[in-house]
Amino acid sequence: MGGDRAPGEIVAGAIQAVDILGVEVLLFGREDAITPLFPNGAAPAGVEVIGCSEVIEMSDDPARSIRSKKDASVVRCAEAVRDGAADAMVGAGNTGATMGSALLRMGRIKGVARPAVAVPIPVPFSHPHLLVDAGATVDASPEWLLQFALMGRAFSRLRFGVENPMVGLLSNGEEPGKGDELRKKTFELLDGQPWFKGNAEGRDFMTGHPEVLVTDGFTGNVALKAMEAALKAAAGLVFTVLGSTDETKKAAEVVTGPLLQAVTDYLDPDTFGGAALLGVDGVCIISHGSSSARAIVNACSLAIDCVNGNLVTLMKETIQNAG
Amino acid sequence: MGGDRAPGEIVAGAIQAVDILGVEVLLFGREDAITPLFPNGAAPAGVEVIGCSEVIEMSDDPARSIRSKKDASVVRCAEAVRDGAADAMVGAGNTGATMGSALLRMGRIKGVARPAVAVPIPVPFSHPHLLVDAGATVDASPEWLLQFALMGRAFSRLRFGVENPMVGLLSNGEEPGKGDELRKKTFELLDGQPWFKGNAEGRDFMTGHPEVLVTDGFTGNVALKAMEAALKAAAGLVFTVLGSTDETKKAAEVVTGPLLQAVTDYLDPDTFGGAALLGVDGVCIISHGSSSARAIVNACSLAIDCVNGNLVTLMKETIQNAG
Repeated sequence: MGGDRAPGEIVAGAIQAVDILGVEVLLFGREDAITPLFPNGAAPAGVEVIGCSEVIEMSDDPARSIRSKKDASVVRCAEAVRDGAADAMVGAGNTGATMGSALLRMGRIKGVARPAVAVPIPVPFSHPHLLVDAGATVDASPEWLLQFALMGRAFSRLRFGVENPMVGLLSNGEEPGKGDELRKKTFELLDGQPWFKGNAEGRDFMTGHPEVLVTDGFTGNVALKAMEAALKAAAGLVFTVLGSTDETKKAAEVVTGPLLQAVTDYLDPDTFGGAALLGVDGVCIISHGSSSARAIVNACSLAIDCVNGNLVTLMKETIQNAG
Repeated sequence: MGGDRAPGEIVAGAIQAVDILGVEVLLFGREDAITPLFPNGAAPAGVEVIGCSEVIEMSDDPARSIRSKKDASVVRCAEAVRDGAADAMVGAGNTGATMGSALLRMGRIKGVARPAVAVPIPVPFSHPHLLVDAGATVDASPEWLLQFALMGRAFSRLRFGVENPMVGLLSNGEEPGKGDELRKKTFELLDGQPWFKGNAEGRDFMTGHPEVLVTDGFTGNVALKAMEAALKAAAGLVFTVLGSTDETKKAAEVVTGPLLQAVTDYLDPDTFGGAALLGVDGVCIISHGSSSARAIVNACSLAIDCVNGNLVTLMKETIQNAG
């Protein structure tokens, strides 16, 4: 309910997900807002509305809202996973509230110190690589970053079939010894692991190497949004130039289609289906607040992959084996 | 001497700077490597070579190298500013060594706790805005970030003529209360300042608002390089698409020129002349390790602006008035 394009795009995406993926979807939210959006005014087969009276808005404080709005759609959705009424949750609203609801209602996996968001980072002409953590845990310790690395590797295998994912520690330089105190201590902790590639840099984003970039949720969130801003600025520049003269406008008729297709295939977050919250005792997929129907379908597809791939069991084993 | 394209591009840039800017340039480095690069094999008018026997390479540890290589070109260059033999230094080699040499040889301005790198962040169709700190001080305190904000504002005025630069605190969300411990404490310290716009996000990069983004050098460095990586990936995607079919290749003949011109005008770091190290008792301009001759000319131009604008005096007054 809380997203920028909710509930319209979410409902449309849910209906498409049923058709395309053969999944059953529970929609949590205000019935009076959702039901009129159905063709024929009634939920189609495979879609069920679970009425919730409250909404956590994009601007609401996540922690406070989860406490005060017990009947919020995102909270009830997380409870459905906890109670076994749903196999996975997909949220495209207030990210903090989605993470918080999952964490508080599903609980943490035993042994996991803190959850982490694994976000796919686009790599042109390849599958994405992963950034872990992109915003769940803003103040981190070296031990937590080690867990993020382990969970990220397991998830990279599940999601992209990378057999032996290598991990880079995001830092301000490649050389060992680079970094702030957190990075220096984390480097010592990771050093010697066969999957540890050493420090990585911001310039390693979108190159595909290493497959997993580990950082605290503060740095990860800033870097992720900085990249999005850069891509947006680049796109703005390109399309402004294409529209600048009669000659370029003519050329644009030819290249705009292929350009948009390439962006959709390789850069658009809607294509990747969102991020996964790792370390909680259930499947929680976090989508952009501005998700389109297509993004919701892809998020449902990712949720299915996580359920079929036994994400939670995988994370439990990963943390147990490390302990 | 230490840069990726040194000394060739540096020497070429120096010669152009003399011609275009009417400046006198001292070139610090190995005479046997530099002199053969001059047309006619001798330094042209306005250029003087100061022989130095050692080079700090890109891969060298900055702190250790500065201690052990007393005759390194970058160290001697900083000493020339300290001693009044030069008005400003421009370095396009090992960034850490450039910053370290400036800091250790010129010294810190009285009252400045830590130096900060002010990097211009491109804003399409506008002048750049500033990111402070982009890598000088990786572990920061709230009080240091306040100084970065003050120095950044003063520099924004000097460099871009922004009359009343607003400052955003880079965080993982706009709302007050967002951020890690450092950000929360810094927010309290900045709150109430008439120039403080509150938290900013990674998505504010390249939009031009606010004019100054303040962060610690670790986060700033990661974000800066992440943006560069994103722009590079976007450019790669665009030019791959343009070269993909006979039809797009034909269109590319028309649009490639304007596209490259727009990139040069608005996105290319070579255009901006590099970053300024704020808080040291002298003018130090840090250019990309891969700087072209054009970048060196622009860096010299920025250095001249900083000298003519009395950067050091401005920083001294800024810190004094804040104290």
